[in-house]
Amino acid sequence: MDFIKAIRSSWESKNSLLCVGLDPDFNKIPPHILKMDMPIFQFNRAIVDSTSDLVCAYKPQIAFYSASKAEGQLEMTIDYIHANHPGIPVILDAKRGDIGSTANMYAKEAFERYQADAVTVNPYMGGDTLYPFLKHKDKGVIILCRTSNPGARDIQDLESDGEKIYRIIAAKASTEWNYNGNVTLVVGATYPDELKEIRDLVGDMPLLVPGIGAQGGDVKKAVINGRDSKGAGMIINSSRGIIYASSEKDFANAARNAAMNLRDEINLYRY
Amino acid sequence: MDFIKAIRSSWESKNSLLCVGLDPDFNKIPPHILKMDMPIFQFNRAIVDSTSDLVCAYKPQIAFYSASKAEGQLEMTIDYIHANHPGIPVILDAKRGDIGSTANMYAKEAFERYQADAVTVNPYMGGDTLYPFLKHKDKGVIILCRTSNPGARDIQDLESDGEKIYRIIAAKASTEWNYNGNVTLVVGATYPDELKEIRDLVGDMPLLVPGIGAQGGDVKKAVINGRDSKGAGMIINSSRGIIYASSEKDFANAARNAAMNLRDEINLYRY
Repeated sequence: MDFIKAIRSSWESKNSLLCVGLDPDFNKIPPHILKMDMPIFQFNRAIVDSTSDLVCAYKPQIAFYSASKAEGQLEMTIDYIHANHPGIPVILDAKRGDIGSTANMYAKEAFERYQADAVTVNPYMGGDTLYPFLKHKDKGVIILCRTSNPGARDIQDLESDGEKIYRIIAAKASTEWNYNGNVTLVVGATYPDELKEIRDLVGDMPLLVPGIGAQGGDVKKAVINGRDSKGAGMIINSSRGIIYASSEKDFANAARNAAMNLRDEINLYRY
Repeated sequence: MDFIKAIRSSWESKNSLLCVGLDPDFNKIPPHILKMDMPIFQFNRAIVDSTSDLVCAYKPQIAFYSASKAEGQLEMTIDYIHANHPGIPVILDAKRGDIGSTANMYAKEAFERYQADAVTVNPYMGGDTLYPFLKHKDKGVIILCRTSNPGARDIQDLESDGEKIYRIIAAKASTEWNYNGNVTLVVGATYPDELKEIRDLVGDMPLLVPGIGAQGGDVKKAVINGRDSKGAGMIINSSRGIIYASSEKDFANAARNAAMNLRDEINLYRY
């Protein structure tokens, strides 16, 4: 699967910019699921089966698996999505970044071991640490640009020669780092003004947009400021607001309803 | 174990600033070890047993394990060091960084699952993404400052109000982020001038210094520019130059000799 093609195709065929974050937390998974063998996989499978017609992508956050020795269930989850819901790209949210020889190992982790279609990476160490990911032409490389958290200001908003760091990242990402056309940026929904600035800088490049829901981002502002020239261009992630919509036996249906509502709310502002 | 105390005690009792990086690579591990069950653990155990009197710390790089589904062998390695060579701190090199709820999971991965004494983290997302690590008072939090790779210049050397980003990180790390006294910085040996600048900024804070050996850093310049007021203050890492000194049956002895030579070379320039 070519990630960029797959995500564009997904936006159109599903009429959805919604990405569901698969961040399994033992404190929030319904009790009847926790009793099962492979509870994280069972939880994810139920969420995926109940939302697959509503989403453009899934995004498992790897820390929620590695903290619990559940790498095997992460592999099973990604396999399951690819086998049973073909065409939906899976973004491994890992925010990796290291020198070349190590970055090659992280690329192997994401693309070979987990068979992810895209991975998030951190640009602090510079361009040479991104190439081991970028060289995988069919894979999406999603570079942190302006993140959704309050502390995003600490480093990303510093100005160098009148340009903020996140703008420098956006400019590099859309030119020198995008030689394979597989770059995407993370821009938080919690900062709609910055989202607009970055959209203006990068043309129709896809943006991964976290921060809706639990983090407080406003859907209307995010979509109006972040959409591309075709009313798409955004992979809008929601994790907790969807997968933990209910902690009872009806959790999968509740997740479906929450996903449908958010997809529809997003679609109100796309054109 | 309190990481900062342990590393200071290790510098003194071992008379060594050397840290050995445990980065197992199937292409370089001796063939007779590859035939064994748990080859990565067997390799690491042999390296550790042959070098433990020469080092102040060990530093496994997690990507080399996760790329090969060898998390179990990483756990075994860290357990083995703690059980058989007590007092030697283990640094998990993971360069994690994410929003608070996810960073808590990464802290759980490093400190609870792997029982690491310290972990490397990436500051790009800002101070609030570091607190989930910093709050573990006994654990070392080793923040990327000026890394050893060529691309380090891309972001870390940008200037904001006349101050380079890596200097801003160093200043924050030694003040607002160090409220528990458990912060350390990564500064590459490949940039001795920047090492000197950062040493002058952070007083006697311990620095993790990669880049010696395969990456080309000069030992003399690094030690003279990076040492603290007591002729210590540095955790000087070498991975490939030590653990792959030989790929034959004598690999553990060859690693011991390489470690002894590097420790002695470092000690020439400490005072």
